[in-house]
Amino acid sequence: MDIESYFTEFGARNWEPPADDSKVRFAIVGCGWFAEEFALPAIGRGDHCTATVLVTGDAEKGSRLASEHDADHVVGYDEFKDGTASDSYDAAYVSTPNALHLEFVEAAAELGKDVLCEKPLEVSAGRAERMVDACADAGVTLMTAYRQQTEPGIRHMRELIQDGIIGTPVYAIGDFSITLLGRDADADQWRLDPDLAGGGSLVDIGIYPLNTLRYLIDEDPVAVQAETKTSDDRYEGVEEHITFQLSFPGRMSAAVASSYGASLDDTFVLIGTEGKLEIDPAFFPEAERTFHLERDGTTLTLDGGETTGIDEEFEYFASCVLTDTAPDPDGADGLVDVRTIDAIYEAAESGERVELSD
Amino acid sequence: MDIESYFTEFGARNWEPPADDSKVRFAIVGCGWFAEEFALPAIGRGDHCTATVLVTGDAEKGSRLASEHDADHVVGYDEFKDGTASDSYDAAYVSTPNALHLEFVEAAAELGKDVLCEKPLEVSAGRAERMVDACADAGVTLMTAYRQQTEPGIRHMRELIQDGIIGTPVYAIGDFSITLLGRDADADQWRLDPDLAGGGSLVDIGIYPLNTLRYLIDEDPVAVQAETKTSDDRYEGVEEHITFQLSFPGRMSAAVASSYGASLDDTFVLIGTEGKLEIDPAFFPEAERTFHLERDGTTLTLDGGETTGIDEEFEYFASCVLTDTAPDPDGADGLVDVRTIDAIYEAAESGERVELSD
Repeated sequence: MDIESYFTEFGARNWEPPADDSKVRFAIVGCGWFAEEFALPAIGRGDHCTATVLVTGDAEKGSRLASEHDADHVVGYDEFKDGTASDSYDAAYVSTPNALHLEFVEAAAELGKDVLCEKPLEVSAGRAERMVDACADAGVTLMTAYRQQTEPGIRHMRELIQDGIIGTPVYAIGDFSITLLGRDADADQWRLDPDLAGGGSLVDIGIYPLNTLRYLIDEDPVAVQAETKTSDDRYEGVEEHITFQLSFPGRMSAAVASSYGASLDDTFVLIGTEGKLEIDPAFFPEAERTFHLERDGTTLTLDGGETTGIDEEFEYFASCVLTDTAPDPDGADGLVDVRTIDAIYEAAESGERVELSD
Repeated sequence: MDIESYFTEFGARNWEPPADDSKVRFAIVGCGWFAEEFALPAIGRGDHCTATVLVTGDAEKGSRLASEHDADHVVGYDEFKDGTASDSYDAAYVSTPNALHLEFVEAAAELGKDVLCEKPLEVSAGRAERMVDACADAGVTLMTAYRQQTEPGIRHMRELIQDGIIGTPVYAIGDFSITLLGRDADADQWRLDPDLAGGGSLVDIGIYPLNTLRYLIDEDPVAVQAETKTSDDRYEGVEEHITFQLSFPGRMSAAVASSYGASLDDTFVLIGTEGKLEIDPAFFPEAERTFHLERDGTTLTLDGGETTGIDEEFEYFASCVLTDTAPDPDGADGLVDVRTIDAIYEAAESGERVELSD
């Protein structure tokens, strides 16, 4: 890629949406904070997306959201499983608590619907495998909602890294932290329920550096070590902080931290034999993503502009469905992360290095 | 500290040199690359330092350096131990290969000389303990040559962190990497000899994020995990890469990487409950050190200017000696790092978390 093309192509898609104005009609399964604040507005802005069915246990909220977003139907969770309004949507966006993903993805797959499932796919590798199998058996698309993988800047960066722009990747350091609970925050939320969430900061935010690194270097970890820490009683059963390290095939390794109890931060640095990639800020949605590439003493700073990661995520999924293309962040990709997360928790529990087998 | 004082005080010393023009006369024990390129010029620029005796096994090089730096004596290693020219110096700067530090520090201490010893103090905790004991028994000052701890910017940052500028520290991520061996580099150097170096990238460069973090937060690790990797035969017996994590008392933890086989990098990020400190570049000598403090959505960027870390290191040591003040990076400080390094290697070897006891 020549230098001029960075200006013209860096922020551009490297995939083709449908040429016509066809749309994927979504059932939104779980209408919590993220669906309301991020997913429904993104779908509303999409050229190839529309939200037609809202699945929620809160009929009143469902009515309000349906009115705000021009959705046709509000159905309950059991109704969804029974196939209510199934003629009115083509795909399900599953954004329930993590431990409920499997049952709704299975239901959608049985109805022949394509699925965009939030990360992590599920709360254990066994359950994530069942999800992947259910979608494969039904012949439906399963995409894991890794918005990073649909951001043009990160997609181009992956190509550059695969082309050797920083030489052979040697190690990464990264973090993702938020203050989930302020002093007076409501601790009554599913992210703090170990049965529903399947974990703490790792499954919610630490998964971003994990998946983004795997995507950029196109390698999966072969061993992990980890330690969890919790300093606040409200996090009982889900870790507040986690520090983990990943060993990849060859020389590559990574050191990562994530926290629910720290000041906002999302740093990502990848060092190779010949150069460096820094993404800053790396993971927050609707942020001004900046990429710094260093090589031979020169730094190339690429401003990704404000990310449209969530808009892109839905458009990318819809385009994959409409053009019969397999998405990059497929079910197998999501499953690798859940297996890695299981191993990270096992390593933290035992204090021992845990190997990941194929 | 009010905002104006940052401009006037940030780059200033927070310790007092002697008011007179007294000088510490140094014997330079080991005249390798670092002594020649960095230490002797720094001593030459110092107000309270002078190099009077050069200790080397290479008489010809010693003569050349003595001539260039106005040193009075060139003596061999055995002569130094025997007390040759001991009336001509007050303190020894020991910059031999790591595994030789103990014998020369012991010799200096027995001669009643104060000691500035390069990091790591020695190649095992047992040997470092003997060194610390020898200096205590002789009543001489022992300072570990951690130049970070003498940089005004880092010293002020430590005060701000202790004052709570980022709240309670929660975690750090950091790295330090260099390309030690280019394609045609000479692998015949003591850093690649496990007996002389006592380790690879960790003891040489990974020790910087370790010590700087300990200094900034004023805590010592209580447990470690680690993994080493070596992808190049020339590093046989000393690790090329290491990834390690540190657990501190309370909620604090850290994830660190260091490498001899990667593109230059030295990133340091410390996240607290209320804010963030980033030092960039963090560890290279004679670099333009920049400090970014973030809190409540505002970033304060403090330009430390080009570091004078090595000049400051010698002036600080000399001032401590001349004013009878205990240095911050004393022998006990250096010993904690050697104990931690021992534990990190044990953890890497076993794949298990290793606890550090007092």
